[in-house]
Amino acid sequence: MTPSSTSPTRPVPPRDPQVLPLLPLVYVAWSDGILDAEEMDKICRRMKEITHLSPETRKIMEGWLDPENPPGGGELAHLRDHIQELAEGVPWEERRSLARLGVAMARSSGGGPEHWGTARGLQTLQGLEQLLGVLGSEAARELLSSRGASSLSDTEGRVPAQRPPPPFDVGRMTRRLELESETIRARVLPLLSAPPLKIPYGLPTPEYREQVLQAVQRLADAGLGRTGLPREWGGEGDIPSSILAFETLAYGDLSVLVKFGVQFGLFGGSILQLGTERHHREYLAKVVSLELPGCYAMTERNHGSNVREVETQARYLAESEEFEIHTPYPGARKDWLGNAALHGRMATVFTQLEVDGEEHGVHAILVPIRDDEGHPLPGIEIEDCGEKVGLHGVDNGRIAFHRVRVPRENLLNRFADVTADGRYISPIPSDGKRFFTMLGTLVTGRISIAAASVSASKTALAIAIRFSDARRQFGPSGQPQVPILDYLTQQRALLPRMAGSYALHFATRQLIRDYSATSSEEERVRVEAMAAGLKAYGSRHAQETIQACREACGGRGYLAENRLGTLRADTDVFTTFEGANVVLLQLVARGLLTRFRDEMGDLRLWGALRFLADRAGAQAARRNPVRSRRTGEDHLLDPETHRAAFLFREDQLIHSVARRLKARVDDGMDSFQATNECQDHLVALARAHVERRILESFLQAVDETTETAIAKELEELAQLWALWRLEEDRAWFLESGYMESTQTQAIRQMVNQGCRRLRDRAVPLVDAFGIPDDILTAPAAFHDPSR
Amino acid sequence: MTPSSTSPTRPVPPRDPQVLPLLPLVYVAWSDGILDAEEMDKICRRMKEITHLSPETRKIMEGWLDPENPPGGGELAHLRDHIQELAEGVPWEERRSLARLGVAMARSSGGGPEHWGTARGLQTLQGLEQLLGVLGSEAARELLSSRGASSLSDTEGRVPAQRPPPPFDVGRMTRRLELESETIRARVLPLLSAPPLKIPYGLPTPEYREQVLQAVQRLADAGLGRTGLPREWGGEGDIPSSILAFETLAYGDLSVLVKFGVQFGLFGGSILQLGTERHHREYLAKVVSLELPGCYAMTERNHGSNVREVETQARYLAESEEFEIHTPYPGARKDWLGNAALHGRMATVFTQLEVDGEEHGVHAILVPIRDDEGHPLPGIEIEDCGEKVGLHGVDNGRIAFHRVRVPRENLLNRFADVTADGRYISPIPSDGKRFFTMLGTLVTGRISIAAASVSASKTALAIAIRFSDARRQFGPSGQPQVPILDYLTQQRALLPRMAGSYALHFATRQLIRDYSATSSEEERVRVEAMAAGLKAYGSRHAQETIQACREACGGRGYLAENRLGTLRADTDVFTTFEGANVVLLQLVARGLLTRFRDEMGDLRLWGALRFLADRAGAQAARRNPVRSRRTGEDHLLDPETHRAAFLFREDQLIHSVARRLKARVDDGMDSFQATNECQDHLVALARAHVERRILESFLQAVDETTETAIAKELEELAQLWALWRLEEDRAWFLESGYMESTQTQAIRQMVNQGCRRLRDRAVPLVDAFGIPDDILTAPAAFHDPSR
Repeated sequence: MTPSSTSPTRPVPPRDPQVLPLLPLVYVAWSDGILDAEEMDKICRRMKEITHLSPETRKIMEGWLDPENPPGGGELAHLRDHIQELAEGVPWEERRSLARLGVAMARSSGGGPEHWGTARGLQTLQGLEQLLGVLGSEAARELLSSRGASSLSDTEGRVPAQRPPPPFDVGRMTRRLELESETIRARVLPLLSAPPLKIPYGLPTPEYREQVLQAVQRLADAGLGRTGLPREWGGEGDIPSSILAFETLAYGDLSVLVKFGVQFGLFGGSILQLGTERHHREYLAKVVSLELPGCYAMTERNHGSNVREVETQARYLAESEEFEIHTPYPGARKDWLGNAALHGRMATVFTQLEVDGEEHGVHAILVPIRDDEGHPLPGIEIEDCGEKVGLHGVDNGRIAFHRVRVPRENLLNRFADVTADGRYISPIPSDGKRFFTMLGTLVTGRISIAAASVSASKTALAIAIRFSDARRQFGPSGQPQVPILDYLTQQRALLPRMAGSYALHFATRQLIRDYSATSSEEERVRVEAMAAGLKAYGSRHAQETIQACREACGGRGYLAENRLGTLRADTDVFTTFEGANVVLLQLVARGLLTRFRDEMGDLRLWGALRFLADRAGAQAARRNPVRSRRTGEDHLLDPETHRAAFLFREDQLIHSVARRLKARVDDGMDSFQATNECQDHLVALARAHVERRILESFLQAVDETTETAIAKELEELAQLWALWRLEEDRAWFLESGYMESTQTQAIRQMVNQGCRRLRDRAVPLVDAFGIPDDILTAPAAFHDPSR
Repeated sequence: MTPSSTSPTRPVPPRDPQVLPLLPLVYVAWSDGILDAEEMDKICRRMKEITHLSPETRKIMEGWLDPENPPGGGELAHLRDHIQELAEGVPWEERRSLARLGVAMARSSGGGPEHWGTARGLQTLQGLEQLLGVLGSEAARELLSSRGASSLSDTEGRVPAQRPPPPFDVGRMTRRLELESETIRARVLPLLSAPPLKIPYGLPTPEYREQVLQAVQRLADAGLGRTGLPREWGGEGDIPSSILAFETLAYGDLSVLVKFGVQFGLFGGSILQLGTERHHREYLAKVVSLELPGCYAMTERNHGSNVREVETQARYLAESEEFEIHTPYPGARKDWLGNAALHGRMATVFTQLEVDGEEHGVHAILVPIRDDEGHPLPGIEIEDCGEKVGLHGVDNGRIAFHRVRVPRENLLNRFADVTADGRYISPIPSDGKRFFTMLGTLVTGRISIAAASVSASKTALAIAIRFSDARRQFGPSGQPQVPILDYLTQQRALLPRMAGSYALHFATRQLIRDYSATSSEEERVRVEAMAAGLKAYGSRHAQETIQACREACGGRGYLAENRLGTLRADTDVFTTFEGANVVLLQLVARGLLTRFRDEMGDLRLWGALRFLADRAGAQAARRNPVRSRRTGEDHLLDPETHRAAFLFREDQLIHSVARRLKARVDDGMDSFQATNECQDHLVALARAHVERRILESFLQAVDETTETAIAKELEELAQLWALWRLEEDRAWFLESGYMESTQTQAIRQMVNQGCRRLRDRAVPLVDAFGIPDDILTAPAAFHDPSR
């Protein structure tokens, strides 16, 4: 990334006060590039005439002044860094010429300038400067502040200051992070760097959508649509890898990601998970090859979150052994379906099912929507959703069905079926239970969105932290400007969130492992809750992180070419789709309340609330104020301190919300109203639970890291993240009496300290995310401003 | 907005259990619109045959069943609202036919169904339902959940439930808000509703930019570019109105707003404020007519916030009485200039000035950049900034100057001049002071951005709150879904921010008054600080509010046609331009610290810090814990409670930051480093100060409101806003010992309560912003999805 990584082939001149004043002249002489050979030769000879240098020094200088062997770009950059370092203490007014700068550098570096300090010495330097034919003040400014690029094509004009090497190996950190994903990343990353997956920004919507289709086709051709499929259907039976592929794809174009997810995850997943062998045999191969592009038609215009009450109707017609699918009114149109506006040929339609006059709740039926030429089939009315805020490459559409008939076999009948003679049968007697079983198809999607959110946040952080390390603005009086990442507010905006991306990385990895290892019903319920919680938490983290990164980059962050705007617009809907965050968090909270019921046997939910409420009093005694009020650094950095605080919060919240709910129900309030009055409390409980689980995963990951340097780094990130989260919620800890203000104030200082400590390692830490440079910036579709 | 505002011409049938069961049938009969006259007649006759109605009731029903006089859309909507209200308690399973729904409605409304409860009664109703030829369950669903629109062109499908009328008059509230702006709004609002100012979204960038130019021309033609100009130059001498015009324009297309601001506010303003008569005479008329489009060339590639060290160079050439303007290296290019990429003909260039070898700091010089045909002049190199995140209609560009010469007279010489014989003269001896005087041109811009931010937040809130009142999702078991604004989390996301937009409205109005009334230097400094502070606070409010609104609207908020995405992308840079927020807040904080020095005479800044630090101990005693720990409702709603808390916080923060700074400086730390270590603390102080000032303006506005109903409403909004701000910063109040947890918890409950109280008035309260309906939604440039 930086010129300083090219090692110089000749030694940097020593910190010799006799030599120092010459360095700016040497640098400018070579870097200018506009002197002809004769002029250059003249300058070199004049420099060599300087008599008062020691033999060794002279030899080094001659090496730098050989016209036959000019220094390369890397060497010059190295020399410039050296000069910039030496010039750090030189006041502004001494920077108006190269000669004065040189003398001042010698003076400030400790040794007196000796010869150069005399009038004659300064004259010699000024003579050389004149020979160079540059405006001294300008050349000095350029030398001290810029990369010295000479064309308007330069986009940065800054060199990051040299930093001490990080105490860990970046490549090894990447390998630690990608322990389980090396193989899949090796398959996916190279695809991201080349067309059709590398898509220029700014394409008109129709072209963009076509290119996204090609990209998904490329992924299908590379076999990435079949990773999660069982081997019997030609897949690899590797669900974790299918999610990790999605996670990796999220470093690239997010329209490609979403269309990929719709086709293989949602459409393909619904056939796999809700269908039976007849569907698998007929469709799966065509889905994973993209021969059959499809939609997942769950959401309706008037039913987004409340999908159990979708209003699309399917009536079984026994006489013809068909289902008649119907949209009763416009509000019941299927809406927001990816792949619907242009490319989909079939849809998994979630619809109320009526058999022989009896309603059985929501079921999924495969409905062909377009013919082989791509025209909508009779009775299928398709509308484009039109321009969106982001994800312009995804063809979202609306579908209305006008009494469309499909064969009985199109019912995805794993959990319920209609026999040829028109009897409804299901192994799951309750409509509700059957519905929630079918919703299981969304779990993979939610885990995938959580993982993709983390990737998007990493991309934004890599862009913003590298920029903040290079961009300089203001500084101590009379001294060069400092990188903006040196500012506390900039560190606070970026570094705890960077730690957050590490934390969420390990949490999603843990969830992926848990998901694929699930065996019992109880585990399944827990995994589903955590999928909902991490999707909500992760998409919020992405939204806030990307916004912070956009602002941290100032005007530069507002250029489309720097991706932050697109990243934000594309990921914005992550907080909404696959379950609106606030709905998902309530699901998590209800799960937590219900779990107590399970643990206590067959009590009803409100019984569980009573039980919890009763326990709340005893609970308070569990606190250990002596322990929790310690403010020592060791105590505050101790992971056990963090774990205890996170656990305490979760425990308290569950008991207090139970108490509040119970009080309302006891007063005769209906449960809907009672829940609504405690909605913010339930959301807080869910967040606390998810955060505690994230911390556990992070700490476990630290424990499982064998390499000391890497483990130490991760440990420090875990500390910063945990302390930052405690700081953010310190009001709650103060209110609950768990902490006192001396402690919360100490935590704030620890977060500041953690930021300062990590500052020098911030760039290596985002480099370790392993996002290839060529996908960190977006190629532009238009450079012609008249376009 | 809502059908219910059309008053019906015939009375709604009484809540008579004899009539109730008929209402769904009457509604569906008329609303369906597909029955022919004969069928309709048959149904009417059958209804009239029903024998057991009282004479009055019969008369009313006959009014509703007259085929010669069918009810209009408004009346039907009214009838539907009536039915929906009556049906609220009816369980889901009773809604499967119109007949069963009718009977259940009668039963749940208290009166026994009498005749209708019998098998024969139900049969009569079922017969009628059959005559209607509708599927009963479908018709009932439609009736209870939708607007009953019958085509796919319907975009909403929902009717807001009827609410009690607000206790205040919406029009009068608007007039209260717009007390000082009625005239200017009457000039601006009609322009916003028509081309060329009403611009469809989704235009390709080049077309968009051209249309924005036309829109600014239209504004110039309407005289809106000259409002703030002194009368002697053909203006109206009305600076407040020029800012209020900007505020009003911010309801429309924000690219138009920004280009308008660049041309008249920044370019025109710099000539007016930094130039002298020779510039005014030559240029002002051409600027306000848009004959001379121009740029404000301050920002450079490498100097965004730190503009005092811009690197553009101007050298005075005495021999030709010219300035030579030069860009020494690419990083010194002028950047981000609105109007530069395409339309600008001249630029006010901020450049270092060198006269006779001596540097005098930053000065502004007018430099022509394009000829009359629009081609860049020799030595002027212009580059388009390319696509941005938003504001696509503004032609931002970069300019490099290659030894460009302009006459001596082009120096804007109000604060400094170069005489014909090459002497530099200035009434302000210090470079620094002169620079900050010149920056005064930015103050109007900052106030304008603050005002525009408030307008943008109002637009977003109006969109999101109306939507949330109409959109229904979930509900008590077996009952209709409830509007999502009934949910606590939705209320919390939107209503305190709505109160915030009211608060900021009055604060910006106050600032505009203060700005135009400024006479002393001390007042000027205070106004400048408040302009910086409100710009930062207001743009942050806009960013957070728009994001909350986007998410509050779920998928619907992700459609481009609903404006929230564009609003966010366009206003996003408000946090960056005209001074990055974090830099401006530090300016505010430094101003507060410095002011103490002024108040104490001639002490130096660090002396002031010592003074403040010493006072800090005494300060703590000023607290009144007895008073501040009361949790009673009256106490917590009392504006004096809020004022005292806000003041206490500001006071404490200024003393504690002074103490911390002083400790560091005493330890020998340089002031840059010391400031950086306390940067988050300084930012917190600035926010606390701005928030306190906002509260004061709001409370003053309440006091000055004569109409009781309006004043009461504003008072409640001020309470909600103040409590919400206290809640958000409760950690600080707990840490400082000013509040105890019983109090902060009571505050949280009061915020919840305030939200619930305002819920029914939320729609009238955003209606009172007075944003015309036709500019609340964006016209689309493309309805053809193949485009």
